[in-house]
Amino acid sequence: MPATPAYDSLCATYTRLHRFRHFQSLGMWDGAVNMPPGGNETRASALAELGLLVHGIETDPKVKDLIGAAEQEPLDEPGRANVREIRRSWQRANLLPSDLVQARTMATSRCEHAWREQRGKHDWKGFLPNLREVVALVRREARLLGEAQGLVPYDALMDRHEPGVRSADVERIFGDVKTWLPGFIRTAVERRKADPAPDARGPFPVERQRALGLAVMKLLGFDFERGRLDASTHPFCGGVPEDVRLTTRYDEGDFAASFMAVIHETGHARYEQNLPRDTVALPVGRARSAGIHESQSLSFEMQVARSPAFLRFIAPVIREHLGDQPALSADNLVRRYRRVQPDLIRVEADELCYPAHIILRFEIERALVDGAIEPEDIPALWDAKMREYLGLDTRGNYKDGCMQDIHWAIGLVGYFPSYTLGAMCAAQYFAAIRRAVPDLDARIGAGDLQPVFEWLRANIWRHGSRYETDELMRRATGEALNPAHFKAHLESRYLS
Amino acid sequence: MPATPAYDSLCATYTRLHRFRHFQSLGMWDGAVNMPPGGNETRASALAELGLLVHGIETDPKVKDLIGAAEQEPLDEPGRANVREIRRSWQRANLLPSDLVQARTMATSRCEHAWREQRGKHDWKGFLPNLREVVALVRREARLLGEAQGLVPYDALMDRHEPGVRSADVERIFGDVKTWLPGFIRTAVERRKADPAPDARGPFPVERQRALGLAVMKLLGFDFERGRLDASTHPFCGGVPEDVRLTTRYDEGDFAASFMAVIHETGHARYEQNLPRDTVALPVGRARSAGIHESQSLSFEMQVARSPAFLRFIAPVIREHLGDQPALSADNLVRRYRRVQPDLIRVEADELCYPAHIILRFEIERALVDGAIEPEDIPALWDAKMREYLGLDTRGNYKDGCMQDIHWAIGLVGYFPSYTLGAMCAAQYFAAIRRAVPDLDARIGAGDLQPVFEWLRANIWRHGSRYETDELMRRATGEALNPAHFKAHLESRYLS
Repeated sequence: MPATPAYDSLCATYTRLHRFRHFQSLGMWDGAVNMPPGGNETRASALAELGLLVHGIETDPKVKDLIGAAEQEPLDEPGRANVREIRRSWQRANLLPSDLVQARTMATSRCEHAWREQRGKHDWKGFLPNLREVVALVRREARLLGEAQGLVPYDALMDRHEPGVRSADVERIFGDVKTWLPGFIRTAVERRKADPAPDARGPFPVERQRALGLAVMKLLGFDFERGRLDASTHPFCGGVPEDVRLTTRYDEGDFAASFMAVIHETGHARYEQNLPRDTVALPVGRARSAGIHESQSLSFEMQVARSPAFLRFIAPVIREHLGDQPALSADNLVRRYRRVQPDLIRVEADELCYPAHIILRFEIERALVDGAIEPEDIPALWDAKMREYLGLDTRGNYKDGCMQDIHWAIGLVGYFPSYTLGAMCAAQYFAAIRRAVPDLDARIGAGDLQPVFEWLRANIWRHGSRYETDELMRRATGEALNPAHFKAHLESRYLS
Repeated sequence: MPATPAYDSLCATYTRLHRFRHFQSLGMWDGAVNMPPGGNETRASALAELGLLVHGIETDPKVKDLIGAAEQEPLDEPGRANVREIRRSWQRANLLPSDLVQARTMATSRCEHAWREQRGKHDWKGFLPNLREVVALVRREARLLGEAQGLVPYDALMDRHEPGVRSADVERIFGDVKTWLPGFIRTAVERRKADPAPDARGPFPVERQRALGLAVMKLLGFDFERGRLDASTHPFCGGVPEDVRLTTRYDEGDFAASFMAVIHETGHARYEQNLPRDTVALPVGRARSAGIHESQSLSFEMQVARSPAFLRFIAPVIREHLGDQPALSADNLVRRYRRVQPDLIRVEADELCYPAHIILRFEIERALVDGAIEPEDIPALWDAKMREYLGLDTRGNYKDGCMQDIHWAIGLVGYFPSYTLGAMCAAQYFAAIRRAVPDLDARIGAGDLQPVFEWLRANIWRHGSRYETDELMRRATGEALNPAHFKAHLESRYLS
């Protein structure tokens, strides 16, 4: 091996960062799972101090020089990919002036805090001035990031979550979806009317739900030697790849929420647990993008767990843990997970309606960043699009309308597309898996998920960020992201 | 206020250290309570990286200059106390050359690892070479620390846990105890023979034991807004003063172990939770010493919880949680906690025999550091002292003899005295509380512990490290540590 001193030094720096980020992850997980309320202030100070330290390491001018030098060193292909990802990571930390970062932190913290009160009161008027301030800073941020990277402003924001993916691609893909989705939804609602699927009736004691969750995690291959399951207000997958902490929330009246949350988060968790071990501390060893991460959770939740084959397999397991009742029959569960019902709330949307919520948000936030619309235009646009895509009236209902998500309040713009890109990737993976494993449904129906795990491991998990998203998809499935697979999946599940 | 730039800068540095130590505490607590085995390696790397960072801040030459400058600044008395404690903290981190620290880490890690195997096999022969290496390094360490601080070597080690306390004082105090303790033990064993006190019979489900533990923590004033109870292999009190994490371990056959562990750790926890809030991040705001810390846990466990008054009050609460049985009657519990039985194991010793275990260890480890004995002399000395103090034969039983504790294996020398100094301080506090509150037992018997909390808060907790131990004791109780109170307490509980 030729000497690569700059590269080696970069790797040492990013390994050090990984070790400090370990405590950021632990501090955040603990804050959501264990921390008593009185611990909040000191935890926040400790996390802020650690954040400063991490930022200081990331913005050390020596790192920039090292990146430039490493790019000239004789590296192999994974090494070059690592330097590419290190440059990306460095840019994210360095492209914005600290006064903007600080102003953004202040404005989003204020806006989020007020939003928590205002949302419940439909207080759009109170929310608007805060949102305007956040949008102004997000626009400035997008312009600066775009100029530095040669991207249009919205693309610069999206690039942080979906490196290499551009809004022109998203627009083309979503544009295709828009041509058929509203019709699909109407047809599916009609068809499913004839299929009543009552929900199971609780109470389902938390301990039994937890045991069921652990059983399904085991079935889904979660490695309990390197992770655990806990409860928190909002389910999430946290921790570090070497020790993945996933959470769910329990509602004694509704086992399904926790059950599907566990499955969804287990998809995220298995990606993290199976990232390449030898580069776990380095940017090239991290998950490819938000969308690819979501494609893992949706592979587990939408492609596997909501499939009739899996539901038939798992129904007796559910009954074993929660007791028998007609609503827990395999047939009823299959009907239950084919139910389609347009609803105001994104996070409660079914698989078919979900993309409509995303397309609406993508269209609005992109126009917002470009300056084509102003924050005060949002409610009318929201209502018009909800009517067009889902046939719902949202006038005056800010709480369940344009104030429902936390994203814009905290300045998180450019993230929404990842949810639906992930759903599409997952559908495309399964089209590929079915080509390779023609009896996939029979195997899933027998509880044998090895073909799925093997395919994801070989094609996605083990690569981390080695390939750009487009190349990753082509290598894995033989083609770039193609919404036809998603369409075919939805047709087969909801319109058959 | 006059300008004190050096002092202010020192406070900022130590506040920063406090924030990083937050993650050290969290990482260690999580490691004992939550972490799956596979997370160990990455946690160890992350803690090592954080340890390096903290050490780097502590040993920054600028800090030494700031301490010198702050000592010349016009500070008020708490400020001067803070600088004194900062200098202490700085010395602990700076007096040893890094090659010695590293050699010590290696040797103790090797010795501890081997000890875990060797202890169970009575393998003194295998243990001895490792222990010799550790002792050689501890001697070098003690000599260096002693020379730098003008202390004899053993005192320099003890000073890290009991600042300002000297082995001459300990020898005088323990010398007094030795004149009466062996006789007390023999008499008590005789007297108690007539008092059979059967143990309660399980199984006691973990959930009920936990509920009982939470109930007693509440009664003992634990602040659940700033702390929590969990389970771990060995009970401990961890976390940070703003968020105290205490643990216990559950044995379904023996509720008493967990019950008393919870009470003991709650004593530590209340000290931490009630340290002066305005200096929580600074050395002056920390607990005074290991012995004063132990005196809090022993105030709760020995002075309050094992008192007949408290046992009579708590017996119905125990029965409410664990069900009724004759062994849980108040009278039986009172007899149970007056039982005296010399035993080989320190951590299982009763209150009366415990000091004998400590005196033995103090005498041996001091001679070891001074070079008066060598590691190979330990077993014979151990046996002679166990016969003299407790009337027990330990020949050939290394596991339950001189290999029972982890302390020497990890190079922790100079710590043992703190356990018994703490027990003595606690007895002295309660003599003072009884003078101030003549009906103390009646109030404890009615479940009213406010007089205890108020006294400890006013005299110990709120002072942190503002006063040296000797002054703290004089201010609190009117005299320096005086083992007569401990003697009177033991007489009244075990010889009456």
